[in-house]
Amino acid sequence: MPTIAVDAMGGDFAPEAAVEGVASVSLNTDIQCILVGNERRIQKILESVPYNPENINIVHASDVIGMAEDPHEALRRRRDASLLVACRLVEQGRAAAAISAGNTGAAVLACARHFPMIPGIRKAALASVYPRQIEYPGQDYLALVLDVGATVRCDASELVQFALMGSAYARRVSKVAAPRVGLLNMGREETKGGTVLAEAHRRLRTLSGINFVGNVEGHELATGRADVIVCEGLLGNVVLKLLEGLAEVVVDLTAAAGQRSWRWRAGLALLSSDVGRLRELTNYASYGGAPILGFEHVFIKAHGRSTGQAIANAIKVAAKAARDRVPEEIRAAIAELR
Amino acid sequence: MPTIAVDAMGGDFAPEAAVEGVASVSLNTDIQCILVGNERRIQKILESVPYNPENINIVHASDVIGMAEDPHEALRRRRDASLLVACRLVEQGRAAAAISAGNTGAAVLACARHFPMIPGIRKAALASVYPRQIEYPGQDYLALVLDVGATVRCDASELVQFALMGSAYARRVSKVAAPRVGLLNMGREETKGGTVLAEAHRRLRTLSGINFVGNVEGHELATGRADVIVCEGLLGNVVLKLLEGLAEVVVDLTAAAGQRSWRWRAGLALLSSDVGRLRELTNYASYGGAPILGFEHVFIKAHGRSTGQAIANAIKVAAKAARDRVPEEIRAAIAELR
Repeated sequence: MPTIAVDAMGGDFAPEAAVEGVASVSLNTDIQCILVGNERRIQKILESVPYNPENINIVHASDVIGMAEDPHEALRRRRDASLLVACRLVEQGRAAAAISAGNTGAAVLACARHFPMIPGIRKAALASVYPRQIEYPGQDYLALVLDVGATVRCDASELVQFALMGSAYARRVSKVAAPRVGLLNMGREETKGGTVLAEAHRRLRTLSGINFVGNVEGHELATGRADVIVCEGLLGNVVLKLLEGLAEVVVDLTAAAGQRSWRWRAGLALLSSDVGRLRELTNYASYGGAPILGFEHVFIKAHGRSTGQAIANAIKVAAKAARDRVPEEIRAAIAELR
Repeated sequence: MPTIAVDAMGGDFAPEAAVEGVASVSLNTDIQCILVGNERRIQKILESVPYNPENINIVHASDVIGMAEDPHEALRRRRDASLLVACRLVEQGRAAAAISAGNTGAAVLACARHFPMIPGIRKAALASVYPRQIEYPGQDYLALVLDVGATVRCDASELVQFALMGSAYARRVSKVAAPRVGLLNMGREETKGGTVLAEAHRRLRTLSGINFVGNVEGHELATGRADVIVCEGLLGNVVLKLLEGLAEVVVDLTAAAGQRSWRWRAGLALLSSDVGRLRELTNYASYGGAPILGFEHVFIKAHGRSTGQAIANAIKVAAKAARDRVPEEIRAAIAELR
């Protein structure tokens, strides 16, 4: 199994969540982890949890990039930040992939600085995953949407590349042989959404090696129509945050009502399995993060609110993506395109 | 009270829903309605419900535009369609406003054909309303989002005009003195979202006569941060359909589970008031429709699934918007801009 560099200092619950996640992975898998961050703090947390020392190394980093910091500014000023040190370990071949629950913009920039881009790729993409209804046999319960914020506006060529990258990732990581790829749009008709989307639709439809199911409308994001949803960053970012926001409203409603009323507590107990399906939307712990795609190395961005369990899942996803050579899969798909 | 032209034949439950809605309005208000459509069918439904004949007229229209028809094609071929006849009644001064639950694209085109555009308006906008959390005193429980599909891409000037139109409508119809206007974007910072959104942000911030609260992110759509959310049609359309789709998942889950399990039925009974808040999202009956803005006349587009109660509410909204001179309010705001 590959070695994973883990940014121990990124995320709302760092460094505890990262260290606990690594400790848990060390006991249950053969994955080697390098915890990158404040060595003394990491050591202290490790002393409080069970772990397998044979599977864990620590590399000290003296600085941290805050969640709300301006990414460009942070990368310029904090050269010894844990995120950057983790990426350098991958760059130097000491790790096969990196993960972080920290500042998303900084993670995208760190990849761009330290990882070579796959030949022919025009723009990197930040993906995200979210649970939705399953409609087809073998479908993963998580859908992949990209881009969700590495870009703002995209042209047709960039959208086609996102489709190929997302499809390659889903094939390798979700083990879906022919992931259903959809183009997020304002209507099913192929001419919808202006010239860029119409051109992307036309090219995706005629592309071999991809299972293009056509345009996907907003309401279809909640269904199993597509496994990989392609869009420009502005659209993907708004949609993703809306999904998360609505899920939090559901959780807030049930939590607040649970505190205030015995009726709600009783009702929730009766309903638990189905309310659970709604709550799953905010259960970042079970997702394991999503990739930043377009580079020669694997980087998994875990949610900022990741718990130890979420970090453990992100490490497993990163190890799977590195072991199954997702970047090579993407490189081959892009090479075929040219 | 003004006279409202009602497209009796548009919508999934036409003509029954439209006729029942008009009948109910005729008993409870002084609003005059003209039912436009197949006279015999309308008469037959009227015979089965209580209504006040003094408040209802019928104007025959021999044709209907289907929900799934291509709008351009339909307008070219169906010159006597109920939607077009209703718009002509407004054009001729026989009605003060029109409403329809039919084909949305055809409704936008019908307005463009029969209503003069307000001087200076560059593009008409289709608005929509949805319920969200309330955070400020006096806030309406419905937020207004525009554009949701009359446009695809927009420049900064068009977005600024959408802000002024939406704000004017919310002031008059929701009776909120200074509606909170937000620009849908991928981050709070004023430079986010590319040149068009940054330019729109800069202009909205310096505009007098509008309560601009800044950029609104996806998750904030579920909150009370803004009363009027401004975006280009592609983005608004995807967001609106996603909101509707998720609400339907919630309703489906509760309905399907209710059928299959006594536990769910018992749980739902206990939870009813709070599940009701989620269900409200698909309760189109209570919304009353949303305006097509930019024209000298009022047009209210009701949801395709409108029931009789929804049509009745849409008629009341149309009467209020016409009586309170929403187009004049918009004209004044746009004139000030120039």
